[in-house]
Amino acid sequence: MVDELTVINMFLEVLGQPRKLFSYIGDDVAWTRKAVKRDKFVIKVDMLVGKTDVPRGMSLRQAARKSVVACVSDFACKGVKPWGALVSLGLPRGFNEEHVLEIVNGFKDARNEFGIEIVGGDTNEASDLIIDCIMFGWGKNVIRRDGADTDEYVLVTGDFGLPPLGLDILSGKKKIKSPRLVEKALEAVLYPRPRLNFGLVVGNRKLVTASIDSSDGLALSLYEIAWHSRVDILLYELPINENLKNYSELSEEEKREYALYGGEEYEIVFTCKPKDAQKIMKVGEETGTPVKVIGRTVEGSGKVYFKGEVVERKGWIHFK
Amino acid sequence: MVDELTVINMFLEVLGQPRKLFSYIGDDVAWTRKAVKRDKFVIKVDMLVGKTDVPRGMSLRQAARKSVVACVSDFACKGVKPWGALVSLGLPRGFNEEHVLEIVNGFKDARNEFGIEIVGGDTNEASDLIIDCIMFGWGKNVIRRDGADTDEYVLVTGDFGLPPLGLDILSGKKKIKSPRLVEKALEAVLYPRPRLNFGLVVGNRKLVTASIDSSDGLALSLYEIAWHSRVDILLYELPINENLKNYSELSEEEKREYALYGGEEYEIVFTCKPKDAQKIMKVGEETGTPVKVIGRTVEGSGKVYFKGEVVERKGWIHFK
Repeated sequence: MVDELTVINMFLEVLGQPRKLFSYIGDDVAWTRKAVKRDKFVIKVDMLVGKTDVPRGMSLRQAARKSVVACVSDFACKGVKPWGALVSLGLPRGFNEEHVLEIVNGFKDARNEFGIEIVGGDTNEASDLIIDCIMFGWGKNVIRRDGADTDEYVLVTGDFGLPPLGLDILSGKKKIKSPRLVEKALEAVLYPRPRLNFGLVVGNRKLVTASIDSSDGLALSLYEIAWHSRVDILLYELPINENLKNYSELSEEEKREYALYGGEEYEIVFTCKPKDAQKIMKVGEETGTPVKVIGRTVEGSGKVYFKGEVVERKGWIHFK
Repeated sequence: MVDELTVINMFLEVLGQPRKLFSYIGDDVAWTRKAVKRDKFVIKVDMLVGKTDVPRGMSLRQAARKSVVACVSDFACKGVKPWGALVSLGLPRGFNEEHVLEIVNGFKDARNEFGIEIVGGDTNEASDLIIDCIMFGWGKNVIRRDGADTDEYVLVTGDFGLPPLGLDILSGKKKIKSPRLVEKALEAVLYPRPRLNFGLVVGNRKLVTASIDSSDGLALSLYEIAWHSRVDILLYELPINENLKNYSELSEEEKREYALYGGEEYEIVFTCKPKDAQKIMKVGEETGTPVKVIGRTVEGSGKVYFKGEVVERKGWIHFK
């Protein structure tokens, strides 16, 4: 079993000392310069648990990266640039240095990909693998989830349904014949790509009125915006992934379930004033982010409709 | 089993919405005003795992409070006022609402005791109880652990040995006949009291040259200061708790082991220039904190001596 000092040393070996820190890794706390004056301080934590969040077929390196992605996705939808992260680990007794090194390299991947510093953490023995990622940063404008008004557009980045299908393929719950669809679904679930650049630009230009990430599923995300903003949402169409949509061996019902209630997508679900829609599309082009209008807001009390029917308020809720 | 929304609602019911926050609990991230301009941002995480960190006889409420205490203790020894905390929970499947409410009340205890805001968190199902406490704040001066020079005093707050004895009593590893000693030892381990006020005042007045908390044991704490500051430490005496010292049924060797290598004390181990020792004693009186000089620093390369012998470099290292 690897002890705590060894883990810290492996972090230092792979990542080095953070560059923009006043403190050094190994002191009791991490400290850093503050950013410009009027910025708000933003912080977030997301815990990944081996048993429930790391499907068979996902490497430890991918799992560690994913724990960071979950936080980055939330910063992206709030339009805030993440500055740094702490990682708090619970390691099962059987873990050796090779396992830990895989995890550290997953953090290195994420650090390089999203330009964040890893500034500290904690290591413990636990019954299950626990990767708790804490992310912080500073932002002038933080996009809320309660800012939507009536007669606004409802939009999403990317499309939906692939990652939950990928999960079902990994668990053996679903057999898919098309190698192309299998490949796409597995990549979507093993290597999720949050929409950080898009989120930062639309946040910076104040083009978005309300926003949320969709890791708990499209339906729940829409309900959160509708409920907190006190509007209803009418959907024109479901943003089902094209590969999934065209695959004939799944029923329409199944495709709809994956797209609405699957989760793990890390896409942004958001609203904007109609006059800003064109500008948002342009940001999508500039940042290589597919963006689609999928509905509009109307007066109401927090419901979501598709083709005249109420969309079920369910999704990926832990423990259910 | 309790679901995530229920847990969030219990937090809101017991704690209310944080008062000094721009955001509200339930959004993707928490955000807050920043403090004054030249302050450094300080952040820390500490994970408590049921199996290893919650002894039999410790309530869930005490365990939740303890997870916060561990962070407060680190802020105290750095001289930085904690502003807020996030709590990331891993809950075993058998947990019901009563269990969660106990945990939430432990956070409430800590919030009121230390004047911090609980600004967010995460909830997950896990095999073991996991309470990951993330603490942050802002400070002008952060006391490092590498700031000691030669010919300085080495000091501690409080005394040592009781909490590890308490742990051994709880686990049945040690039988103690004195009810008074049992009571003292149990209180020390179940309800630890970090030295926040003392740490903030000596930090603010720049009276301390190097500092560390002692949750991994006195010996390791001394070694950390000595090693990072590149000095040796000569101990005059061991700050063994009086009740423990006077108890005749434990050997001198056992008392020494408890005081040097036990840990879980959350006392501050620190150094100061001789000219500041009187001022520090006065701060101790003002804040009701026992303070004692236990040794001095000399030229060296990171070793710790007591009565001419090298103190063993061991303590509470996870996984060892």
